[in-house]
Amino acid sequence: MLKVVKIGLLGLGTVGGGTVNVLERNSQEISRRCGYQIVVSKACARDMSRARICSTDSLQLTSNPDDIINDPEIQIVVELMGGEEPAKSLILAALANGKHVITANKALIATHGNELFAAAASNKVILAYESAIAGGIPIVKALREGLSANKIEWLAGIINGTGNFILTEMRDKGSAFEDVLKQAQQLGYAEADPTFDVEGIDAAHKLCILASLAFGMPLNFERVYTEGISKVTPLDLTYAEELGYRIKHLGVARKTDDGVEMRVHPTLVPKKRLLANVDGVMNAVLVKGNAVGATMYYGPGAGADATASAVVADIVDICRQLEISSDQYLAPLGFLSEQLKDLPNVSIEQVKTAFYLRLSVLDKPGVMAAITAILANNGISIEAALQKEIEQHGANTQVILLTGSVVEQLLVSALAEIESLDSTTGPAVRIRVESLQ
Amino acid sequence: MLKVVKIGLLGLGTVGGGTVNVLERNSQEISRRCGYQIVVSKACARDMSRARICSTDSLQLTSNPDDIINDPEIQIVVELMGGEEPAKSLILAALANGKHVITANKALIATHGNELFAAAASNKVILAYESAIAGGIPIVKALREGLSANKIEWLAGIINGTGNFILTEMRDKGSAFEDVLKQAQQLGYAEADPTFDVEGIDAAHKLCILASLAFGMPLNFERVYTEGISKVTPLDLTYAEELGYRIKHLGVARKTDDGVEMRVHPTLVPKKRLLANVDGVMNAVLVKGNAVGATMYYGPGAGADATASAVVADIVDICRQLEISSDQYLAPLGFLSEQLKDLPNVSIEQVKTAFYLRLSVLDKPGVMAAITAILANNGISIEAALQKEIEQHGANTQVILLTGSVVEQLLVSALAEIESLDSTTGPAVRIRVESLQ
Repeated sequence: MLKVVKIGLLGLGTVGGGTVNVLERNSQEISRRCGYQIVVSKACARDMSRARICSTDSLQLTSNPDDIINDPEIQIVVELMGGEEPAKSLILAALANGKHVITANKALIATHGNELFAAAASNKVILAYESAIAGGIPIVKALREGLSANKIEWLAGIINGTGNFILTEMRDKGSAFEDVLKQAQQLGYAEADPTFDVEGIDAAHKLCILASLAFGMPLNFERVYTEGISKVTPLDLTYAEELGYRIKHLGVARKTDDGVEMRVHPTLVPKKRLLANVDGVMNAVLVKGNAVGATMYYGPGAGADATASAVVADIVDICRQLEISSDQYLAPLGFLSEQLKDLPNVSIEQVKTAFYLRLSVLDKPGVMAAITAILANNGISIEAALQKEIEQHGANTQVILLTGSVVEQLLVSALAEIESLDSTTGPAVRIRVESLQ
Repeated sequence: MLKVVKIGLLGLGTVGGGTVNVLERNSQEISRRCGYQIVVSKACARDMSRARICSTDSLQLTSNPDDIINDPEIQIVVELMGGEEPAKSLILAALANGKHVITANKALIATHGNELFAAAASNKVILAYESAIAGGIPIVKALREGLSANKIEWLAGIINGTGNFILTEMRDKGSAFEDVLKQAQQLGYAEADPTFDVEGIDAAHKLCILASLAFGMPLNFERVYTEGISKVTPLDLTYAEELGYRIKHLGVARKTDDGVEMRVHPTLVPKKRLLANVDGVMNAVLVKGNAVGATMYYGPGAGADATASAVVADIVDICRQLEISSDQYLAPLGFLSEQLKDLPNVSIEQVKTAFYLRLSVLDKPGVMAAITAILANNGISIEAALQKEIEQHGANTQVILLTGSVVEQLLVSALAEIESLDSTTGPAVRIRVESLQ
């Protein structure tokens, strides 16, 4: 006779419904792994009458979250409401009631994780969040346990499926950002208000958590530099391709002697890298450890069942720890809490990367010489160059350059000089380049 | 003041030396994660005078393994000798002495794992083996914990770096198998006797373990169908490429209504799949779960530090469990031991896949008609075809076909019919095709 663990769900939308479905569909397999029968006894939903993707026959539906967080029979509360409030207060209340909590809420962990982890510890319960990053990919587990022998040097991830879908479609079809965004909205890949996805905020939340897992530091969301994909043009995707690169919206975290870089921005990646070939709505995180070298984790970053896969993995993990003493729980960021160390922030101006530049200039003698002189005077090398006639622009031409590695503020000031040349006819486009080696 | 855990190494070659180096280089990071100072107190080596890749100043070197397995201060024994004996007896003795054991010995786990896991359980200690499969990639952890919500439907892996290096070089340079093998031996990627790698035995060991982790069944090494890469020709690599495929040496495990397939063989994989783009000595495992969909795990499959990364991850895992009751240990295959279920074996003759066929035939009217008639009579569809003149063979030509999905024994008997035609001038080449979807 299997022991029973009762679960309460806060939120019964896509991921909540997926969680109920996965637990039911795979109940045998899951019990064979964890030794428990997992029962969703209650679920809380705002709109009680809404159609569900799962059966609600065997659970009690309520519109009052207190019915769940105060139920003494419920041992694990799963928060899938999203947003800051009331999610945060409910999680804190559930923790205070001695319940283990699982959340898929990346925004909440990124912005209030330090407080929430401390609350879990002081209440001697577990706060798990595998589903908050990269959907079904077990990347929290990989960083926290699988790569525990390593100093992580850097990681780079495609951690927003919507953005990756848009860039992939723009490249494959030569379409403009706005057109592909509309298509993504019709397909349900993008929200009506797509800001969180296309401006990189969602990716920044995830990157912030990944960086803390990698480097053993408290969460510092406000330090993440964030740039979206709405200014990427089909032209740049094409030129990048000609130069042997793809443009991906990456989250990059890197530890240097100066501190930690955390940044989300469109990035040129060499086409031959596996990460450059992660297309559509798929996610992938490439991690460089000083012992293992580069490892990569790939899979669906969203979707009901894929995200539920990570939620249920957290449920199984908690079941496997129900009978051990709370001082033996794995620390939420993999490093013992008292061993977390804040590290200096490297601001984007101080970050050193190579750059892709697209300059709009007059097509006349001496222009290229003036540009290259400015770059040389700033110590910026040129690794590759293309020149493209733009038919509809008459005497205008586009100069595309790949620079060597340069501190960003140096490049910015060199670009200001170039933009002030008489022969420059428009603002420069610049996109960072990562070799990922 | 950190608590100390003492480790004894059986074997101080590449991986043993790497383990000492990684533990030393990353000692701070590792202690911050697990709360212990990990000390390699003794190492056993056959040849005491051999040069080492690590410092041996702080450890006691011995040629007698009993010095380690009988040392009451040593809590964790790491077996890195390889081979069946004395490794197996030493592991059993260490387990009997109440020591946790870590092994990178895939052959031993594949062929004697059931017995070894039972011995670990009855002695209330842990037997860990993350380093036995795909080097530094935390694939055991992914299957055992990260994907625990899923019924695994199939997995497909490039799990032998030597073989993948050889196939990649053959493709890129058009070289013959024998020439690339020699080069791999010079580079240290292949052993003097390369049989284990190129004939697929090493991959079969790993696949057997992966299949048991995926499907929750006891280890059944003798059931793995194994075919090497020594018969793959540059010609087939080229034709595969023309058809939109790459040839990879895959280990495939699949659960069907009939049972479980376990097979290692050269395989055509669509070029656009990420797995088809895993080149050189790298490893990758693609896993299809019924909830998460397809996820992939990529990284170095061998090398001192990469394999040591997995060994040390196991050490950290054990440290994190040193103070919990042994009945709370995670079961070695992720499923509770009493829940492991043997499943029927699907023999290779019963496996259903598509096929790449290369037929040597006379270049005269009616030949193609005869071949296609035989295939059609056996219910085998043709998805793509190429015809290639072979200049030096006079009137001979090569017909390359991609078939639809067919039960292997049906294809074999159809090929026998084709080979018996007067117009057929040589044996047929056949390579299985996997769409990996």
